[in-house]
Amino acid sequence: MRMYDLIEKKKHGGSLTRQEIHEMIAGYVSGEIPDYQMSAMMMAVCFQGMNRQETTDLTMEMAHSGDTADLSSIEGIKADKHSTGGVGDKTTLIAGPLAASLGVKVAKMSGRGLGHTGGTLDKLESIPGLTTTIPGDRFCRIVNQVGIAVIGQSGNMVPADKKLYALRDVTATVDSIPLIASSIMSKKLAAGSDAIVLDVKTGSGAFMKTMEDSEALAREMVAIGEGAGKKCCALITDMDVPLGRAIGNALEVTEAVQTLRGQGPADLTEVCLQLTANLLFLAGKGSLEACRAMAESAMRDGRGVKVLADMVRAQGGDESFIYDTDRFAKAAYVRKVTAPAGGYITHMDTEGCGIASAMLGAGRVKKEDSIDYSAGICLYRKYGDLVKEGDVLAELYASDERLLDPAEERFLQACAIGEQAPRPRKLVYARVTGEGTVWY
Amino acid sequence: MRMYDLIEKKKHGGSLTRQEIHEMIAGYVSGEIPDYQMSAMMMAVCFQGMNRQETTDLTMEMAHSGDTADLSSIEGIKADKHSTGGVGDKTTLIAGPLAASLGVKVAKMSGRGLGHTGGTLDKLESIPGLTTTIPGDRFCRIVNQVGIAVIGQSGNMVPADKKLYALRDVTATVDSIPLIASSIMSKKLAAGSDAIVLDVKTGSGAFMKTMEDSEALAREMVAIGEGAGKKCCALITDMDVPLGRAIGNALEVTEAVQTLRGQGPADLTEVCLQLTANLLFLAGKGSLEACRAMAESAMRDGRGVKVLADMVRAQGGDESFIYDTDRFAKAAYVRKVTAPAGGYITHMDTEGCGIASAMLGAGRVKKEDSIDYSAGICLYRKYGDLVKEGDVLAELYASDERLLDPAEERFLQACAIGEQAPRPRKLVYARVTGEGTVWY
Repeated sequence: MRMYDLIEKKKHGGSLTRQEIHEMIAGYVSGEIPDYQMSAMMMAVCFQGMNRQETTDLTMEMAHSGDTADLSSIEGIKADKHSTGGVGDKTTLIAGPLAASLGVKVAKMSGRGLGHTGGTLDKLESIPGLTTTIPGDRFCRIVNQVGIAVIGQSGNMVPADKKLYALRDVTATVDSIPLIASSIMSKKLAAGSDAIVLDVKTGSGAFMKTMEDSEALAREMVAIGEGAGKKCCALITDMDVPLGRAIGNALEVTEAVQTLRGQGPADLTEVCLQLTANLLFLAGKGSLEACRAMAESAMRDGRGVKVLADMVRAQGGDESFIYDTDRFAKAAYVRKVTAPAGGYITHMDTEGCGIASAMLGAGRVKKEDSIDYSAGICLYRKYGDLVKEGDVLAELYASDERLLDPAEERFLQACAIGEQAPRPRKLVYARVTGEGTVWY
Repeated sequence: MRMYDLIEKKKHGGSLTRQEIHEMIAGYVSGEIPDYQMSAMMMAVCFQGMNRQETTDLTMEMAHSGDTADLSSIEGIKADKHSTGGVGDKTTLIAGPLAASLGVKVAKMSGRGLGHTGGTLDKLESIPGLTTTIPGDRFCRIVNQVGIAVIGQSGNMVPADKKLYALRDVTATVDSIPLIASSIMSKKLAAGSDAIVLDVKTGSGAFMKTMEDSEALAREMVAIGEGAGKKCCALITDMDVPLGRAIGNALEVTEAVQTLRGQGPADLTEVCLQLTANLLFLAGKGSLEACRAMAESAMRDGRGVKVLADMVRAQGGDESFIYDTDRFAKAAYVRKVTAPAGGYITHMDTEGCGIASAMLGAGRVKKEDSIDYSAGICLYRKYGDLVKEGDVLAELYASDERLLDPAEERFLQACAIGEQAPRPRKLVYARVTGEGTVWY
């Protein structure tokens, strides 16, 4: 049995050839190779790894396992960004419109939230009427007209990744850098943009908890992207603290609009400026410094708000919610969470904050769960802040009063208050390109 | 999902508790835990291992996953032997009757051959009329009357091991010492004997190719056996050269009878004497030296032949084939394989010899294959012998002439002839007990 030999080879540390990877993925998608053999292979990969060539071959094989997007009717350079996922990460809703307002075409396919992380599609769908299921030709027309559109993956894109990811998800074989890199990059390559900015999150709320792993993942993905002929770079950004103040779908859209107006939280604003600068840079709009200045200028004059509103309208949504975010429905129940003691906030376990938000109804514990768009958390105090006992740390929002107590308990577990001021954290740690890593 | 957590724990090198192993095995047998999760777990075990306690817990859980043998109606001490499998290994047919002739009760459950190794049930079934499917009460009656009976595992014994082994067999997760040890010992414990002699084969025709692995497996199995309250020891014996001269089912029965008459090949005779001595020793028949002397004496007077013949008759077989082995049908085609060059036989790849025999029809490549009892190989020259070009190395027997050429080619590939006499090999390397390993 051929698959048996491949498992055996990988188990003993061997490298799979392009042809072997081709047969493995084709056989798995067709159902010829059963799940139980593939899960043994995935576990062997978790222990033995894959070299750059294997990872690239696997990525290309998965990218071409189903339909791929045809963006040829979109004029100009198409840029995409991808975040490895975090809590309060609404950067697509800010960097996307900003870059589009400066002449880059952003044809973006996004995902949904699961577990402690949110998803851009869910956030957008909190806007009444907006759809993220749009046929390819209309998607391209919107990008041509507005500069940006954000949709979900169409049905038969990267079926190999879908099937493989579902299997890895139930067999404890997710946390392998070559498997993560190939999963992400196969989707990006199938989505068809010319330039890709990767936002690799690091820290307690990120998939990659250590800087070493984050950099390794970033390097792997950039190499795959460049190997496939794409312009590609990655930023390693902090997810040891939730990004911005809002966690939850409509809450995050509101914060994104504020940030596009230049009135957002400093951390979110900075990360979005750097992401936008890199999108512009890869699209050939000038030096990185010049691109940064363009992004700052666009944020000062708020022109991204109109681009976002135009996109919302083009995708069938009610754009008035962008111009007046007070129109979003408010949650019926609000709980003020107060500091149980005075001192510095020395840690905010970000995964814990994401879980508390999901418990309030803002996220999915299981894939089938529905989402309460008004639910979530607004952080009033964050990492490093000095608080007095009784100070309001955050507000929790829910449509069901019974959700408040357990979410509050979970949220408080995530916050540590101590006597010593903690060390300030960086927002962006490094920029990774094909030439290497530049640490900031 | 609980199984997910167990996979994750093992993947990161953790130890599973008895309760966790219980739930895992019960869930797997009931079908609640799917194959794809179990195969990921098995692969994680291949990399991370299991400690003694985990291996023991897994063994006990599998041993009690179905029916267990009730040998309480058999008088006296019941002893069992188990070989890890090899080529030309007909020791059960010799050591079993010998020990029985000296007052030990041998209530043995054996297996079938697969791949390059033979199986005792197949060998016995080459005797016309003999059945190895016998209900438990009749099995016990035969053991009481004759001293020995050899049957196959009943339908619902160790279902966990059956299911797990079938999965490991197709997911390249067989070669893990704790998994091998628990698989073998679960069957031995379910089979219910009081004393167990393990014959751990080592070398090119064995499952364990290195001495280090062989000793580790032996120690693991002895510890499990003693932990379960059994008398238990292991011999590490050579399988770098086929044992005896006959490979193939009726051929091996014939050689077993010759050996029981004291006219067998020296290597086979010596290994059988040591196995018998250890069976007698564990059954409390005296010191190891005294037991060895008893075994030698029984082999000199050939009393084991009658015990074997009585067993054959009790199991429905034609005992006249034991008293006159010329009655076995001869294969229609014989090929004399001659030495392609002169010199010393410096290597006989034993797995290769076993595969050549299977290609002649004596073994199964797939589980469903049927067996030609008359097929096989008779070795005229073995490891260390000095041969001239054209000397007959072996005779190959087949019922289909077309099988001869490929089997001859495979057999010759397995034989290396060189100028230097190779170092003599030991037959029994070590004896492993709960107190440690004694090297010979």
